This record gives sequence, structure tokens and C-alpha cells, in this order.
Amino acid sequence: MIDIDALRSGNRRALGKAITLLESTRADHRVSAEQLLESIMPYTGESIRIGITGVPGVGKSSLIEVLGNYVAGLGKRVAVLTIDPSSSLTGGSILGDKTRMETLSINPSAFIRPSPSQTTLGGVARRTQEAVLVCEAAGFDVIIVETVGVGQSETLVASMTDVFVLMLLPGSGDELQGIKRGIMELADIAVINKADGELKGKATRAAADIKHALQLIQPRLAQWRVPVEVTSALENRGIDEVWQRICDYSDTLGKAALLERRQVQSRQWFWNETRERLLDELKSSQFVKADFGSLERQVMSGELPPSIAAGQLVTKFLEQKK
Amino acid sequence: MIDIDALRSGNRRALGKAITLLESTRADHRVSAEQLLESIMPYTGESIRIGITGVPGVGKSSLIEVLGNYVAGLGKRVAVLTIDPSSSLTGGSILGDKTRMETLSINPSAFIRPSPSQTTLGGVARRTQEAVLVCEAAGFDVIIVETVGVGQSETLVASMTDVFVLMLLPGSGDELQGIKRGIMELADIAVINKADGELKGKATRAAADIKHALQLIQPRLAQWRVPVEVTSALENRGIDEVWQRICDYSDTLGKAALLERRQVQSRQWFWNETRERLLDELKSSQFVKADFGSLERQVMSGELPPSIAAGQLVTKFLEQKK
Repeated sequence: MIDIDALRSGNRRALGKAITLLESTRADHRVSAEQLLESIMPYTGESIRIGITGVPGVGKSSLIEVLGNYVAGLGKRVAVLTIDPSSSLTGGSILGDKTRMETLSINPSAFIRPSPSQTTLGGVARRTQEAVLVCEAAGFDVIIVETVGVGQSETLVASMTDVFVLMLLPGSGDELQGIKRGIMELADIAVINKADGELKGKATRAAADIKHALQLIQPRLAQWRVPVEVTSALENRGIDEVWQRICDYSDTLGKAALLERRQVQSRQWFWNETRERLLDELKSSQFVKADFGSLERQVMSGELPPSIAAGQLVTKFLEQKK
Repeated sequence: MIDIDALRSGNRRALGKAITLLESTRADHRVSAEQLLESIMPYTGESIRIGITGVPGVGKSSLIEVLGNYVAGLGKRVAVLTIDPSSSLTGGSILGDKTRMETLSINPSAFIRPSPSQTTLGGVARRTQEAVLVCEAAGFDVIIVETVGVGQSETLVASMTDVFVLMLLPGSGDELQGIKRGIMELADIAVINKADGELKGKATRAAADIKHALQLIQPRLAQWRVPVEVTSALENRGIDEVWQRICDYSDTLGKAALLERRQVQSRQWFWNETRERLLDELKSSQFVKADFGSLERQVMSGELPPSIAAGQLVTKFLEQKK
């Protein structure tokens, strides 16, 4: 059982145990996990939730390390959670590797948690959303959710955070094609990192390019123009500006708008969970499992219209519940 | 009952009746609709499925009219289906208004079908996907699915077509902000329309801007660079090039790749249908309906974690099935 008082006092061990409980797939663990969540809900919602994404090699961990230490220096407590799709595949987390945030991981005001290695990205994201709540109950003021720009992970992170930071490499044109389709549209703040050494000039040109590209996109919020910051995590430059932009963003939107954004996120999360749980129930039903393969084959070969295959599956699943 | 032979011979009346049957929400109609679909599946899949989107006023109907007549002139039969989210709201279709495609609607080689006015976009899209199959069974070689760039409609259209055409206005920078977030990333072909009169020059500059913006985005397919065509539906210029790009696209990918794309689409469509149908069943269940409002409130107020609320709802729903 989790010691809620220890958790609320910010005890790292209790926090770690609580998140481990959330990540457990054991049915009895899930029951205690939900009891825990229910009991801590009154103590959640006070942090600023920051999503950070970017292609591998852009320097996410380095930026989060210097940003985290900077924010801790302002007297705030910082939690870093990671959603790493690759870890769902390899079973081990890459982003979460603490050795990549050496100084932050030993900072008494910080807590770093690697990505749970679950089989589905959706599963990872659902547990991470809950981990955010637990970190808030543990009194963390700033929660950073880091993800590598792969698959749908950044969309999920954007849907669980107040502000979404997109990190970019100092390049332009073809060099920037690493940006995944649709990610640019999610950004509330763009950061061009690695503006050090010979890349300094390139970073400035890249910033201009990105500003131009962003102009072509309808702004996510009428009252907010996405700023483009140039940083060097290596030389610890531009970090305070990034933090300032994050504060500007939450000031510009204001408490009411941020609360509304979270309420909408919560309602969506609720219905997504409902949808996913129904599908989980169906997929784990021994009664219909055998049909998946043949239905998929018939659908892909064009023998059976998808709507009919789906209807057959759902009817059979709900029938046996009777 | 639908006369399958008349339908397969391309009889417009039979085709219209068949699509009306697909769109009906009556349970018994649904049964006959699925029987119809099952019986025509062997005769589907032979068309090229083209998705076309763009902001209102970009001239989608005008382009489709001249493109449709051009393709009909090549001896092909063209069907035009529309997904118009606004029609789901107003109950009447705007895009599908035949009077907006006067010459195409009287072209013996063409068939134009307005958007069904269903309550949910998802519902409209699901029926449209089925309508594509029926048009193929009726021997149409080219099927154009038109949608206005609103909500998620273009994502849905992209997921049911072989090639996705994004239409843009001849403007640049801020003028282009009408482009919805994420749409640019879906485009296989970009078309700048209204390149006539004083807008000619602007269109050329816009084309350069779009080419630049597209460079910043990871290509959807490694073997295909998204071309940007400049057209004037009004003066009937650039239409043959657009058709040529569509043919280039399908040649470049090749039969195997297009088939694979469709197989992936079909499998996704199958699992999406399954997910949606499960949620439909839950949402229409008198046994749990009463709980929706209170659960949403508790979730939005932060009393209840979404995962728990969802768990409660799903458990209760499946319980009463027992």
C-alpha cells in the first residue's frame, strides 16, 4: 500500500512506488492504483504541465536538464516524465535514462521518471497522464512530459499538457524534414537548440524559416503567436527565455482559459478511456479472439466490408455477455 | 430492394437508391444495406479514389466540375461524393448542391452525390466510405470525395482515398492561415486555384511559399515529392496537369503499394468501426445513459480521474449485458 502522507510530503520513494503501482498491469494492483488516484484527486491540478518533443538528437534531455535545474533554482520542484514509444518496442526506456540527466537527477528539487515499458503507446500515455496527477499530489510545481517525435506520442503529450514545446535542429529546408507531419501544428513554443559553435548562424536562419512556416499555419490560439526561441543547452544559453515564454503563455491565456483547456482534455480523456476500455474488453475476450485474424483477412482481401466485419464482431462480443 | 444488375450496369437511379439505403439509420434498412455491400464487394476496388479538400471559397466545386468533365472526356466515368461537416449541423448539404456543378451534373458519364446529413461527422464518413464501394460496383473509374477543411473531415477523407489533393488560395503568409492545422501534412498533391486575372502573379508566389513550407515537412511517402500545381478552374487552365499529377502519383506508387495502402486503410477502418460501434452501443444503452452527465461533471471538476470514470461506465455497461 502507498503511504499517502509520505507521498504528499514529496517523499521520492513513495512517489516512485505510487507510479510503479499505476504502471502495473496486475488486476489487483489496478484496483489499488485507482483507489490511490481517487484519494489524491483533491491535491492535483496545481502544477504547470509542459510537453516537450523533438526528433532524436535535438537535445531534449540536455535542454530539460538545464531548464529543470534553472527552474529548481527559482525555488520550484520539477518532475520529468517521459513517453518513449521506442521503449514500448525495446522494452527498455531510452529517453528516461537518468544518466542522461546526471545533474538534474541528483537535484533535491527534481524527480525523473523513465517511460514505462508497456506494449502499447496508448497504454503508456494513459499511465503517464495518471503519473502527472500523482506528481502534482506530491507537490511538484512544474511537470515536464518529454517525448520523442515518433508515431502519435506527441499528439498524446499535447493532449495532457498546458503548453507544448517543439524542439528543432538548427537546419533548414530538407534538413528540417525530420519534423514529423503535423507536429509543427501542435507547438505553443518552438525552440531551436544546439545554437553553439559553427551552428550558431544556422540556428538563426532556421528560426527565420520556422517563423515563416508557422505563418502559413492557422494559430492554435487566437491570442497567442507561437514564439521561436534559440537555445544552447550545451552553453546554457536561452534557457531563461524559454522559461519566460512558458510563463508568458500561461499568463496570456490566463487561469480561466487554462482550466477550460484542462476540462476539455479531461472530458476527451474520459471518452477516449471509455472507447479504449471497451476495445480492450473485446480484444481480451476469449469468446471472440479467434475471429480477429479471419475477419482482418476478409476485410483486407475485400471479401467483407469493414463495417460488416465490425458489426459481426461487436454483436458476437455483446451477445456472449448476455 | 436494390436491383444489383441495374446498379452494376451503372444505372444512376439504382445507384442513388443504393446510397440512400446506406445512409438510412433505420435498423431494417441497415440490414439490407449490409446485404447489398456484401454482394457487391467482388465488384469493388477498380477505381482511383481521389480526396479533394480546401477552405471554403477556394473553388473546390469549380475545380471538380472542370476536372470531372475533363476526365469524362477521356472516356472515364466519374462519381463525386461529398463529406460536408456543415451539412451535419445544418441538416442540409452545401458542398453537394448540384447547382454548383451544373455542367458536370448533366454529364452522362458523371454522378454527383451530396453529403448525407447525419448528426456525426464519423457517421457521414462511414457511410461515404461505403458509398465509394457502391460507386465502384456501378462501374465508375474515378471517384472524387470532396470535403471542406473543417474539423477532422479531411483526415477521414485522406484515410479513404488513394491520393489526397489540397486546394489553396493564391495568397501567402498570413493570408494562408486559413489552412487548418495538420492538413498540409496530408496532401499528396497541392493545387493553387484561382490563378486568374490579377491573382495570377500572387498564385505563382503562393506556389513558391507552399513548396518551401512543404520542404519543412517530412514527406508522406519516400518515393513521392508533393507537387504544387497552379490552376484556374474559371479559365479551365492547369486541369490536365492536375490529372497528370494524379496519374503520376498512382504510377509512381504502383499497383502493389496502392493495394497495400488500401489494405492498411481497410484494417484501420475495421478496428475503428469496431471501436465506434462499441461506443455507440454504450451511448445508446438506457442502462448507463443516466450516468454520462454526472461522470463528465466529476471528471471535468477533477473529483474523479477519467480512467476511473471510464472504468465505472464500461463495467456497468458490460455487467447489465450479462
